[in-house]
Amino acid sequence: MVVTFALPKGALLKDSIQLLQRVGFDFSAFLDGNNRQLQIADPTGQAQALLVRSQDVPIYVSYGQAQFGIVGEDVLQEKTADVAKLVDLKFGRCYMAIAVMQCSPYRSVMELPPHCRVASKFVRSAARYFRELDLPVELVPLYGSVELAPMTGMAEAIVDLVSTGRTLRDNGLVEIEFLYESTARLIAHPLSWRLHDRRIHEVVHQVRRCLEHGM
Amino acid sequence: MVVTFALPKGALLKDSIQLLQRVGFDFSAFLDGNNRQLQIADPTGQAQALLVRSQDVPIYVSYGQAQFGIVGEDVLQEKTADVAKLVDLKFGRCYMAIAVMQCSPYRSVMELPPHCRVASKFVRSAARYFRELDLPVELVPLYGSVELAPMTGMAEAIVDLVSTGRTLRDNGLVEIEFLYESTARLIAHPLSWRLHDRRIHEVVHQVRRCLEHGM
Repeated sequence: MVVTFALPKGALLKDSIQLLQRVGFDFSAFLDGNNRQLQIADPTGQAQALLVRSQDVPIYVSYGQAQFGIVGEDVLQEKTADVAKLVDLKFGRCYMAIAVMQCSPYRSVMELPPHCRVASKFVRSAARYFRELDLPVELVPLYGSVELAPMTGMAEAIVDLVSTGRTLRDNGLVEIEFLYESTARLIAHPLSWRLHDRRIHEVVHQVRRCLEHGM
Repeated sequence: MVVTFALPKGALLKDSIQLLQRVGFDFSAFLDGNNRQLQIADPTGQAQALLVRSQDVPIYVSYGQAQFGIVGEDVLQEKTADVAKLVDLKFGRCYMAIAVMQCSPYRSVMELPPHCRVASKFVRSAARYFRELDLPVELVPLYGSVELAPMTGMAEAIVDLVSTGRTLRDNGLVEIEFLYESTARLIAHPLSWRLHDRRIHEVVHQVRRCLEHGM
């Protein structure tokens, strides 16, 4: 049986490939700048990998096109995909936070005026957070450069992923609340996993052992 | 009054900046590879521009953070933003199409089996099309690399934007239906437009004149 991995483009790709290399699968061809292929086979012929947008990883796994996927917890929080979360891979650490302009009069979430505008790429995470707080806000869904929303006055606050904090600082923004931490996760197709396919369990076991012995 | 333009990152940016240069606004700083700013002023001080994701252009315009925006018709078809579509700018020509694998047994949309899977980044456009055709399909929403969906067998067909057709050819896909043509559009904040602000109308008049005299 050929095992298929859905790997995320972007920040988590390099660490994902390094981890799988230690487990015995070589997908380093995806790191070649000239690579245009989205689907490659491991040289041993035992596995293949799909290179997809991080938000699409749970889709490929839930539809069974890949038995495994590697994706950030932030994406899993935002999607309602039917996948089995198996292992916290510990890399790609970042966190979801609320930020406002340095010149904003508000220094905590509870000070934010009801029905103020909050911009985010993570609309579900943001909506859930404010609902639990019972603070009604108007969410402005954006696709990128969320920091521009408070800079232009379109939103009072943003809900966004922070890794080094540099983007916030460079744009005159300051964090006022921590929502949750995110790291990369190994996810699996729930049926493959529940059927106790031997190959699937072997891979998970190897990944866990790798993590115990340090990345 | 300083006029603000929301400009789209990506394929339409260069032509958008060239058009505005002919109208008298210089935002060429956005084309500098080292530029990290998302908000710049025109050297004359008469206008400023925001550099945002194409899907976010209608948001910035509908909230009034920009009086004008330039964005593809494909984005406007997908969003339900409250903006005034003013001028067809004629550049950025591409079209929405349905494609299947070359090895697919289906050669027209009506041959597609009911409830088959169709992957797309343009879920609303796709849903509208199939609803009007009264063909029930299961839409698989993706964020990128839609061509991978039929290649892996996850979807029978895709609804995607085609410009040169190279991505389809390179991935063994073939078009079976044309949905609509898309070009760049000048959009405006509806209230600014309806209030007949003189500056707003001047800009639109200049853009129209530019187009008449050839880009």
